[in-house]
Amino acid sequence: MKTIEVCLTPDLLHQYSVVEKVAVVVDVLRASSTMITAFAHGLDRLMPVAYVEGCLALQRLGYMSAGERDGAKVEGFDFGNSPYDVMNGDLSGKSLAMTTTNGTLAIEKAKSAKKLMIGAFLNLSALAERVKELNENTLIVCAGWKGHINLEDTLFAGALVSKLGDHFEMKGDSALAAQLMYNTSKDNLYEVVSQTSHAKRLKKLSAEKDMRFCLEPDKYDVVPILDSEHLVAQPS
Amino acid sequence: MKTIEVCLTPDLLHQYSVVEKVAVVVDVLRASSTMITAFAHGLDRLMPVAYVEGCLALQRLGYMSAGERDGAKVEGFDFGNSPYDVMNGDLSGKSLAMTTTNGTLAIEKAKSAKKLMIGAFLNLSALAERVKELNENTLIVCAGWKGHINLEDTLFAGALVSKLGDHFEMKGDSALAAQLMYNTSKDNLYEVVSQTSHAKRLKKLSAEKDMRFCLEPDKYDVVPILDSEHLVAQPS
Repeated sequence: MKTIEVCLTPDLLHQYSVVEKVAVVVDVLRASSTMITAFAHGLDRLMPVAYVEGCLALQRLGYMSAGERDGAKVEGFDFGNSPYDVMNGDLSGKSLAMTTTNGTLAIEKAKSAKKLMIGAFLNLSALAERVKELNENTLIVCAGWKGHINLEDTLFAGALVSKLGDHFEMKGDSALAAQLMYNTSKDNLYEVVSQTSHAKRLKKLSAEKDMRFCLEPDKYDVVPILDSEHLVAQPS
Repeated sequence: MKTIEVCLTPDLLHQYSVVEKVAVVVDVLRASSTMITAFAHGLDRLMPVAYVEGCLALQRLGYMSAGERDGAKVEGFDFGNSPYDVMNGDLSGKSLAMTTTNGTLAIEKAKSAKKLMIGAFLNLSALAERVKELNENTLIVCAGWKGHINLEDTLFAGALVSKLGDHFEMKGDSALAAQLMYNTSKDNLYEVVSQTSHAKRLKKLSAEKDMRFCLEPDKYDVVPILDSEHLVAQPS
């Protein structure tokens, strides 16, 4: 039986041999949720970029641009880091360059994985099916908040571990902890996540609507997957 | 109001300014539990040591020695890393040198704190009182397992945060997560901890009795505190 592990923050990624594994990168609030939403609305490909300057350079090549710094949309970008931004934009057949504080950094750190996929509550079941089909040792990489763990990514990891529990061997106490937290919180996810410092930051940015949206499971069946430098959609 | 934070593993200690804080180091299974038990049975002082060779050198100066490697007592040592070992030994007025895989290393990494105390379920309430009296920004440092987080230390952190919640401001999602896990598990701690890989290792070493003992709250009222190079007892 293959194993499933949880890395609670990119600062602990050195403890795992990501190169031998399938990695699922998650940044529930909001980078991975926004990416999934963009692909569900027709986006062709997405390049995750570490710096604002990188996005602006790609913009000059015809890419659209999305992302945030301190939670707010970057000046000159087409979109912020909100699912609502990208679902209302015309993305069909387009290329997007995206940079965020935590999510795109986590992708950068985990890109040596055998395969890298993007997960969030929005594509939970489709993602779980894809992970089962691949049937490799799998590592869920939580993007966290500036190196610290965060509650919403940990809860998502717990949800995914719960879906995979019969098909994979859970390895390590982080997976156990995530599952324990998810099982306690699944019936009131919004209330639990509302207590976090990140939720409070988002409320200040009037992004409560985003938070509710990002915690909805199984809205989409698209699973973004890294293909060389770009994420591309892998519909089920 | 002062803050209370939780560092889930020494590998994340760089994220916290331990030098400005009171640190509570915890290694429930079993280093901090064994230390507390030793002081409750009359031990005068304890030097935490990183290497077996250090303990053996101190033995030649008249120290007794305790500790483990791979969970088992080190050859030539007076005691292993079990509360039952030290409660049956004659420790009154003695000095002890101790080395363990995770606990003594966590102490080493956190020793730049303003004050460093040792916590476990065994001294939970006495420790909480001491932390309240000191009333400084406080960091709970979980020893974890070889850099990984573990469930039992996280649960203890949650228990201590719960005791202090009215007197300190909880800071960061790790504290929230620990409290959430503790609140779900407090009525069946033994069953929850039994699922962990560490518990399975201990069961192989016939240390189930130790596990039950280490999860008993408030058996002792002694709080070990670092005074220069030695831990000393601070009874309430």
